[in-house]
Amino acid sequence: MASSSLPLSQAILSRSIPRHGSSSSTNSQFSPSSLSLPTFSGLKSTTSTTFRRRTLPSPVAVRSPEIRASAAVETLEKTDNALVEKSVNTIRFLAIDAVEKANSGHPGLPMGCAPIGHILYDEIMRYNPKNPYWFNRDRFVLSAGHGCMLQYALLHLAGYDAVREEDLKSFRQWGSKTPGHPENFETPGVEVTTGPLGQGIANAVGLALSEKHLAARFNKPGAEIVDHYTYCILGDGCQMEGISQEAASLAGHWGLGKLIAFYDDNHISIDGDTEIAFTEDVGARFEALGWHVIWVKNGNTGYDEIRAAIKEAKAVTDKPTMIKVTTTIGFGSPNKANSYSVHGSALGAKEVEATRQNLGWPYEPFHVPEDVKSHWSRHVPEGAALEAGWNTKFAEYEKKYPEEAADLKSIITGELPAGWEKALPTYTPESPADATRNLSQQNLNALAKVLPGFLGGSADLASSNMTLMKMFGDFQKNTPEERNLRFGVREHGMGAICNGIALHSPGLIPYCATFFVFTDYMRAAIRISALSESRVIYVMTHDSIGLGEDGPTHQPIEHLASFRAMPNVLMLRPADGNETAGAYKVAILKSKTPSILALSRQKLPQLAGTSIEGTAKGGYVTSDNSSGNNPDVILIGTGSELEIAVKAADELRKEGKAVRVVSLVSWELFDEQSAEYKESVLPAAVTARVSIEAGSTFGWEKIVGSKGKAIGIDRFGASAPAGKIYKEYGITAEAVIAAAKQVS
Amino acid sequence: MASSSLPLSQAILSRSIPRHGSSSSTNSQFSPSSLSLPTFSGLKSTTSTTFRRRTLPSPVAVRSPEIRASAAVETLEKTDNALVEKSVNTIRFLAIDAVEKANSGHPGLPMGCAPIGHILYDEIMRYNPKNPYWFNRDRFVLSAGHGCMLQYALLHLAGYDAVREEDLKSFRQWGSKTPGHPENFETPGVEVTTGPLGQGIANAVGLALSEKHLAARFNKPGAEIVDHYTYCILGDGCQMEGISQEAASLAGHWGLGKLIAFYDDNHISIDGDTEIAFTEDVGARFEALGWHVIWVKNGNTGYDEIRAAIKEAKAVTDKPTMIKVTTTIGFGSPNKANSYSVHGSALGAKEVEATRQNLGWPYEPFHVPEDVKSHWSRHVPEGAALEAGWNTKFAEYEKKYPEEAADLKSIITGELPAGWEKALPTYTPESPADATRNLSQQNLNALAKVLPGFLGGSADLASSNMTLMKMFGDFQKNTPEERNLRFGVREHGMGAICNGIALHSPGLIPYCATFFVFTDYMRAAIRISALSESRVIYVMTHDSIGLGEDGPTHQPIEHLASFRAMPNVLMLRPADGNETAGAYKVAILKSKTPSILALSRQKLPQLAGTSIEGTAKGGYVTSDNSSGNNPDVILIGTGSELEIAVKAADELRKEGKAVRVVSLVSWELFDEQSAEYKESVLPAAVTARVSIEAGSTFGWEKIVGSKGKAIGIDRFGASAPAGKIYKEYGITAEAVIAAAKQVS
Repeated sequence: MASSSLPLSQAILSRSIPRHGSSSSTNSQFSPSSLSLPTFSGLKSTTSTTFRRRTLPSPVAVRSPEIRASAAVETLEKTDNALVEKSVNTIRFLAIDAVEKANSGHPGLPMGCAPIGHILYDEIMRYNPKNPYWFNRDRFVLSAGHGCMLQYALLHLAGYDAVREEDLKSFRQWGSKTPGHPENFETPGVEVTTGPLGQGIANAVGLALSEKHLAARFNKPGAEIVDHYTYCILGDGCQMEGISQEAASLAGHWGLGKLIAFYDDNHISIDGDTEIAFTEDVGARFEALGWHVIWVKNGNTGYDEIRAAIKEAKAVTDKPTMIKVTTTIGFGSPNKANSYSVHGSALGAKEVEATRQNLGWPYEPFHVPEDVKSHWSRHVPEGAALEAGWNTKFAEYEKKYPEEAADLKSIITGELPAGWEKALPTYTPESPADATRNLSQQNLNALAKVLPGFLGGSADLASSNMTLMKMFGDFQKNTPEERNLRFGVREHGMGAICNGIALHSPGLIPYCATFFVFTDYMRAAIRISALSESRVIYVMTHDSIGLGEDGPTHQPIEHLASFRAMPNVLMLRPADGNETAGAYKVAILKSKTPSILALSRQKLPQLAGTSIEGTAKGGYVTSDNSSGNNPDVILIGTGSELEIAVKAADELRKEGKAVRVVSLVSWELFDEQSAEYKESVLPAAVTARVSIEAGSTFGWEKIVGSKGKAIGIDRFGASAPAGKIYKEYGITAEAVIAAAKQVS
Repeated sequence: MASSSLPLSQAILSRSIPRHGSSSSTNSQFSPSSLSLPTFSGLKSTTSTTFRRRTLPSPVAVRSPEIRASAAVETLEKTDNALVEKSVNTIRFLAIDAVEKANSGHPGLPMGCAPIGHILYDEIMRYNPKNPYWFNRDRFVLSAGHGCMLQYALLHLAGYDAVREEDLKSFRQWGSKTPGHPENFETPGVEVTTGPLGQGIANAVGLALSEKHLAARFNKPGAEIVDHYTYCILGDGCQMEGISQEAASLAGHWGLGKLIAFYDDNHISIDGDTEIAFTEDVGARFEALGWHVIWVKNGNTGYDEIRAAIKEAKAVTDKPTMIKVTTTIGFGSPNKANSYSVHGSALGAKEVEATRQNLGWPYEPFHVPEDVKSHWSRHVPEGAALEAGWNTKFAEYEKKYPEEAADLKSIITGELPAGWEKALPTYTPESPADATRNLSQQNLNALAKVLPGFLGGSADLASSNMTLMKMFGDFQKNTPEERNLRFGVREHGMGAICNGIALHSPGLIPYCATFFVFTDYMRAAIRISALSESRVIYVMTHDSIGLGEDGPTHQPIEHLASFRAMPNVLMLRPADGNETAGAYKVAILKSKTPSILALSRQKLPQLAGTSIEGTAKGGYVTSDNSSGNNPDVILIGTGSELEIAVKAADELRKEGKAVRVVSLVSWELFDEQSAEYKESVLPAAVTARVSIEAGSTFGWEKIVGSKGKAIGIDRFGASAPAGKIYKEYGITAEAVIAAAKQVS
């Protein structure tokens, strides 16, 4: 087992390494060595982690994996509310103190939601603080991400290594593990990256979908190897955002019974009372969406109400539950509670003191009282036991169901099955011409056969985006084991749900699709894919004026440029079958980067010289009749315009010119290559360069230089047959030839 | 009156001139001269338009302005349903025939919604076909824009000049006035640009808001000079989009009683039956949002049901109404109705023939039967009478209320009050340092005083974006005369609502605000501002890492580049007070272009050399110690980094260098300048150039050239105090100085 256990640990560790920026200027000082994993051997528990059940000083029952179902109930009855209150106030003051020290942040939500937070992390959720990546943990998402001090305080109390006292004291400071909004890539224990409102609840839908899907695929009678809840806290802001409606509508449709969302109903948003802009009946709306809705009227001190609501939510297994919890923002602050002033600023020394008085809190800043500390201390051994118990269970499962276990393990670790890339199709110039959207479907179907964690779908354009996996049915409420997702016309929710799927398990690889122009609808989710290192594959078809008659509302122009400018996104625009396969290969291999594939609606020929290997380099020579590294002119194309560059080259060569054709399928990948390689493709001495791309020329100066010429489109498209628009807009071989003669 | 009438006509005409692209390759052949205006003299009716009330051959009652309220009711009782059926089938076949001829388009919706369309345009709506821009017309928005042949057929029958038989025959062809989705800038009679789903209903909310606001401000007892309805058709796709939820929630909150939306409930979307992705209870959701909801169960032939529903909707004056109309997509097609195959493709010759048989339609393609033609022919004289009646009313109003009339006229014509620009504040280097978001508020408040059509607000960040107009209260259900809009956390809906406001009247100038990074949430709406020539002012604060602790989720990086690449958007990043004033001046003057102002959270000094005039040129020299046009090095900055360029220049000059500092506040405006001017600012001979901007360097090669250096940020931001991030990311004067020495 030792060898098979390695990838799991590696996968776990690799996910904790922050990426953004160079090491010299990384905004995190967290290194993998600081993450202490429990001493288990891969997926099996060993004697070294033997957990001795003991009677804890607190009256809270020990929860072992076996007594899971009854644990919550037992807890409800036995909890000592005075200690709970003390723990809740600890959370409040950790938030107050951290915001005060940073003189920046949002104390209001943590003060109001501390009771929910306490009950979730202390009484309800199953997790292992020493291995934040334990597969079967309950997931928690703070959709109202500005309230991150709530989550940091909870992670701290629960014993997560990422949030020690010094981390709380460096809240919102350079290099800290406690940034201004929750960031999964900075803070192990944080599942997703939130802050932009509404994203988190949609991520939570993706997490709950993943659980439902994996449970349906892998659980066996008596072996419920996948079994966790997804909890989420969202605020008024999240509720107003359209993305939350999209995601909630899908959650209801899919019947995600193990999704439990707390709506922090505090009646305050930044501009003041929600009365000024938000008077809809949220509960009735969610009922219309197929959710179970519960209202906890006293979220400030009604601990038993909150507990009872969670119990009720768990009993409803065929619907997600929204628990509307009416709270007071900034609860405990005598002068600022229930006002917007406590939302996003430090309380100020005077009000902090007044709040200490008001809540009877005699302690120094950042102090955790001993009894609270002691009460929470059981989560480390208990978490280790939970994981160990699960490891035992998995080992039995593996014996009985080796094939399923291998698939699930691949999903858990992110290790790709050996030889998966051989499934990718290849093409020769004799292969039939086809639209890259169709070639994409061939790849999707090939990958679906070899990648156990591959799943996805379209925003109601499956038959246009060509995204159906033919061997699978639809993921639906009653067929959750299937892998074709039907998102409806909900691009933004789709992207954020895919972020949740990608971050659920390292080996889940979601793809999602719409027309390329409608990335505008989901750009905020794509940006969070990039920031949170979510390997989502965006299958974006109809990628230019080449879609024709639908006209300018449907024709992307600036979109390629706009994503080339976005950090950590791989923008790929393949020209034919080989490049489409190459694009998928890279997209799968780049495990911490989302990829966007811009694909054609129109038929394209299979070109000579294209390759999977070339595609992986981002830019490469597809043909050249010059000798040495010194052509008369370099023609550079991407996607559907590479064909035009090739045609122009043929003509120019007939006239005796030495012409190189370069496919620049991905600028980001090309940028990653060595200076030597780049010089071999685009020699500095050759300034006669012409690029052609049916999109904005913005940014192309970098490639063609001041002496070259970029042919493109710097205005909106038009409604007409595609060929006509190409001609009228001058995206033609004739234009390339003329430009080549001009510059060379 | 002659002189004052001119601007109105001019304003009307100017709006009908298509813009996109150069005239040689414009995608429209429509010219202003082809728009025949009714012969009225400005806002006054003249004898030449005297309308003689006559008995029409059809049994439909003539509706004159005076009998408006009872007209709809009267119509309901008198309509000859056989002729209605024939008219409805005419609409269906015009759509079928046009799609068939184009072999491209969406016949399904027009076939299903023809009854709604007929009743609206023939029986309910008040409009003047010969002046599509008549101010007091009812507005119609086809949110399900793919069904545009419905609207083109209706405009054709009603007598609009833009859609003649030859226009129907050139549906979706190059240069036609009947593009693949409704485009206001191509087709007079189309109010807004739709196609991207959900935008239209949000535009309709903006149109209805405009009416409610203007009516509250300008109507007087006995002089209801502003009084129209806004109708909208939206489909399942629109309903699924989050933007429609955002807009609908606001419409309910604002109580837009004169907004009547028809939900084409046909159970089919592109991927098949809506059962696969859309099972929420839409009616219950809208009730939760504060709408009045009516269900018409037979939308295919239930004309009286539709009429009764509209009557009921009009009777509910304090809530918007959603009429859910259950229809059959592709109604009449024996083999394709009620299936996705009729949604977005031509029926095919065989099925067209079968449909002709099925609906008993013996006519040639594009034929309008004489009785139908005759029935519809009354709309031209009736429309002229409506307008003439309104002109008379307005003339009386103007006599009684000259001040109000002047303001309303400015809103109707778009003519700016003389000398308005004098209200803009100016600054000297001695003026106090301030954040450009605060300077922006000074401008907003100055403009609010002089521009009668100026209104706007923020997506729940008014106190951060600094967008409140202090002399006005909040536009709310019961205070609709006020001008501060409270959008809640609904960026996408906000943008699209502003598009509706901007397109309601040429002189309505909406602004809206959020953090710059959250343009990602509303990008689809901003793109439609650009495409549809909507002068929306996007006030986008917190425009860089300079916002500090909130971290990378809140820090824009690629956003400047992404908008510089978008056609017809003015991206402005002012550096101080004078540039902020200059940015507002340009934003107001560019009446067919949206502007985005990127504004700082942090304090910035008032710089020497900045000016409103320089800003208008997009790029200009703010200081230079060289002689001739030949500095040693040019330092180029934007926004908050111009200060850094200035500091670096000061240091370099101390060392004896001849340094020019250029502010590049707007690339688009600079591009518009003459080659001579551009050369005078950035002489080709000076290749030693350094740019500094706290954002992506993507695109800067165009400015600094291959020998220059662009200082910027090509990764995500970080959570820390702003000064610390600037330092760690190397956005400093030291970095500029080092780069300057390197390149010069």
